[in-house]
Amino acid sequence: MTNKKRTVAELAKLVEGESVGDDKLVITGFAPLETASTGDISFLVKAKDKRLLADFQGSAVIVPEEIEELELPIIRVQDPYLAAAKIHTLLLEEEFVAKGVHARAYVHESTPVPEQIAVAPLACIGARVQLGERVVIDSGVVIEDDVEIGDDTLLKSNVTIEKGCKIGNRVIIHAGAVIGSDGYGYATDKMGTHFKRPQVGIVQIDDDVEIGANSCVDRAAYGVTHIKAGAKIDNLVMIAHNVVIGENSLLVSQVGIAGSTTLGRNVVLGGQVGLADHLTFGDGVMVAGGSGVHNNQEDGAMIGGYPALPMRQWVRSVSQFTKLPQMGRDLRRVKKAVAALEDEEKE
Amino acid sequence: MTNKKRTVAELAKLVEGESVGDDKLVITGFAPLETASTGDISFLVKAKDKRLLADFQGSAVIVPEEIEELELPIIRVQDPYLAAAKIHTLLLEEEFVAKGVHARAYVHESTPVPEQIAVAPLACIGARVQLGERVVIDSGVVIEDDVEIGDDTLLKSNVTIEKGCKIGNRVIIHAGAVIGSDGYGYATDKMGTHFKRPQVGIVQIDDDVEIGANSCVDRAAYGVTHIKAGAKIDNLVMIAHNVVIGENSLLVSQVGIAGSTTLGRNVVLGGQVGLADHLTFGDGVMVAGGSGVHNNQEDGAMIGGYPALPMRQWVRSVSQFTKLPQMGRDLRRVKKAVAALEDEEKE
Amino acid sequence: MTNKKRTVAELAKLVEGESVGDDKLVITGFAPLETASTGDISFLVKAKDKRLLADFQGSAVIVPEEIEELELPIIRVQDPYLAAAKIHTLLLEEEFVAKGVHARAYVHESTPVPEQIAVAPLACIGARVQLGERVVIDSGVVIEDDVEIGDDTLLKSNVTIEKGCKIGNRVIIHAGAVIGSDGYGYATDKMGTHFKRPQVGIVQIDDDVEIGANSCVDRAAYGVTHIKAGAKIDNLVMIAHNVVIGENSLLVSQVGIAGSTTLGRNVVLGGQVGLADHLTFGDGVMVAGGSGVHNNQEDGAMIGGYPALPMRQWVRSVSQFTKLPQMGRDLRRVKKAVAALEDEEKE
Repeated sequence: MTNKKRTVAELAKLVEGESVGDDKLVITGFAPLETASTGDISFLVKAKDKRLLADFQGSAVIVPEEIEELELPIIRVQDPYLAAAKIHTLLLEEEFVAKGVHARAYVHESTPVPEQIAVAPLACIGARVQLGERVVIDSGVVIEDDVEIGDDTLLKSNVTIEKGCKIGNRVIIHAGAVIGSDGYGYATDKMGTHFKRPQVGIVQIDDDVEIGANSCVDRAAYGVTHIKAGAKIDNLVMIAHNVVIGENSLLVSQVGIAGSTTLGRNVVLGGQVGLADHLTFGDGVMVAGGSGVHNNQEDGAMIGGYPALPMRQWVRSVSQFTKLPQMGRDLRRVKKAVAALEDEEKE
Repeated sequence: MTNKKRTVAELAKLVEGESVGDDKLVITGFAPLETASTGDISFLVKAKDKRLLADFQGSAVIVPEEIEELELPIIRVQDPYLAAAKIHTLLLEEEFVAKGVHARAYVHESTPVPEQIAVAPLACIGARVQLGERVVIDSGVVIEDDVEIGDDTLLKSNVTIEKGCKIGNRVIIHAGAVIGSDGYGYATDKMGTHFKRPQVGIVQIDDDVEIGANSCVDRAAYGVTHIKAGAKIDNLVMIAHNVVIGENSLLVSQVGIAGSTTLGRNVVLGGQVGLADHLTFGDGVMVAGGSGVHNNQEDGAMIGGYPALPMRQWVRSVSQFTKLPQMGRDLRRVKKAVAALEDEEKE
Repeated sequence: MTNKKRTVAELAKLVEGESVGDDKLVITGFAPLETASTGDISFLVKAKDKRLLADFQGSAVIVPEEIEELELPIIRVQDPYLAAAKIHTLLLEEEFVAKGVHARAYVHESTPVPEQIAVAPLACIGARVQLGERVVIDSGVVIEDDVEIGDDTLLKSNVTIEKGCKIGNRVIIHAGAVIGSDGYGYATDKMGTHFKRPQVGIVQIDDDVEIGANSCVDRAAYGVTHIKAGAKIDNLVMIAHNVVIGENSLLVSQVGIAGSTTLGRNVVLGGQVGLADHLTFGDGVMVAGGSGVHNNQEDGAMIGGYPALPMRQWVRSVSQFTKLPQMGRDLRRVKKAVAALEDEEKE
């Protein structure tokens, strides 16, 4: 990865920070404090950890505003962690290379190919697909008929996008993910035989969404399974038919969401969380990893456990859970004592 | 998807229902009540929800038998939900198109290719594979040597079927699923080094099974990992070596079943359920989502929790669990009161 | 699978066992006791199960040392289970066939191809990849640029190895697994918008590791996500960025490990276990299936539950959990009795 060169001043401007020291210094790379070397910019999250800079070998540092100056050039910002992500991304940015469609890829003749595109060998694109500009399609990717893909979207190796799904701009879909598989829906007769309910909806993925490796998003039975803008979904996550994921929600790996559940904005689901079907979550709900949730949640609810409770209640119940054997013993002792007292009373 | 045209009378016959009204009316599509338009048939599950028909824009409705007639043609059936699934499926049915093997697909020379088949570009079929009639193999599918596949089976994009596995008729395997990966079996020496136990069995999948996207079914150590007819398995499910899944069982997404466990018919496992190895489940066992099960289950058992208990017991224990902090406080208070009473007694 | 022929004496030597009986007898296959036939060797794990040999149809048996002789040739060993794994593996071993690169596979021109290699049709190998000797790459595999792969490593169908990852010798990666997907890392601004933190590290997989079907190992944010020698990872497992898995650890299916957690040697995680981020586990830690762990663990710790407790404590608490409703009733009764006693006392 050849990095772009930028001056400290340019980087400070990007993150709306204030540069102190030689801001004409040229930065060529980004590294954590411990491994930075000449030309690198690094970042310090908290002013109180200033001692971490003692052995710093890099050339500049992004620092919190409490730090006024250092011996080397700095960029003062409110949130060094955020500024670091933006600066690192900028330094890694590369000009899009329009490699076109590799001779060993397959594109159906009915699909128009934009000039600015990169389709790797052994990728496969079906009929009537609409491809945006600067789309990158890696090897082994299968895009079925009538799919729509926005600009600057990246489909990693062996991804499958099934018939008719709509993917927005700047979306990243990681290797092996499946978008648009059939929802799990059956009608069962008296003999217990299951008849498949046709799944004729689609998946719509809005701008700036990221979907992790080997995750699955099922198409709607009717209508749309909808992943809204800015949502970030980790690996091996399961999204069932007709689910709606609100803007900027975070779903950590191995989360499973059953059919027709709707999440608000900025919901955070920890790893391995399971949500039942037909639930409604408000904005900003947070669910602790491993929890199982069976009821609706208000804006800002913080819950945990299986089944999930309000976080404080769960923590208390769990702490008591570890004392259950002692409680059992105490209770037996008290029962005996009370029986004895009652006997004496009678006498 | 171009729909078939059918009269109300034809559809009524399909579902053994009774048509009332103009049964020569031609139906061209299927839609839910809210989105149906002219030519569509829809369905009403419960007679008490009849008001939902007030704004109905479609042409006919499948209704429960309690409804005797409406202003538009109806089909009266015992189970409208089931009838709807069957009618919707029929209306979507398309003639099989024998596209043959695409020039960009690969089929080993030793594999005979039936005339009625559709193999997409960049699919790969190994040596001595037996392919049924009207099999559809999507792009990116890999079928290894000596696999057998029945009639009318559909393998979606990027599916892998490993060496020697047997797939029945009318099976659907969704994108990215892996059938026949090695079971997880090792013998460990005194130094803690693990030696792989060869996994020389196969996976056998019977007729009318559906397997979800990115699910995995391991081959048997010896013999057969067996998914019996009509079982429906959701996405990201893990089936270990030598497991047997009974007829018409339902495994919701992210279920995991450890080695050699055997399920009866019509077992239902909720999402993220985990079953330990070497268990035996009778017919019709139901397990609540998120449960972990470590013991055998009789026919019809309903269980839940981690570890799983009989459902009623689990619900009661869970409800008490939320009161644990209060119980703790009560118990401490009672202990003190009893101690005080005992002291007075002694005086 | 054509087996190698070996004499009982040769097999005994392989496993450092003692042969008793005709050790020149030629063995052509391996099978369990129940299905063995002429030419097969089988194994008996425990001397007390000797009756299982009554109907044995095979030609020789691996037995524990307590058994001194039988009517047929035996190999006496300390651990028949382990010896069986080694012998079965040897009997299945086949000479590597250097099929070279199939004409329908794609290898970038900058990648040198060793003579001893087998690349299947529709596999895809990127630029500057280093391939060891006797590497087998199945169909649908995608190896991105700058990957390094050691000798005798096997990549099954539809595996993805992303840019720059390093895979050791004798590694097996099962179908659909993804190695080197981006870690899940974002910085969030005040509006709740997430900015991707570049993930510039790699995955390093050491010798003799096995990784299950559709499992995911994310690349490090910086540095290395490290799977150490001999670790065996089952299907659908999630390993986040910067995790370290110690030598010979066992991760059963659907385990999920959050970022930067470090496991010692010979750790065993049961199915569906979830570990929080930034934990440190010592050597030999064992975690019961389905557990969720939020704290560091000493060498040899045995834990279970959600959240996880020391195993004995968890078992006791769980057993008491089932009695919670009874405890609730008892407590209410005792409270009433104490109140009554207190009243009487006052009178």
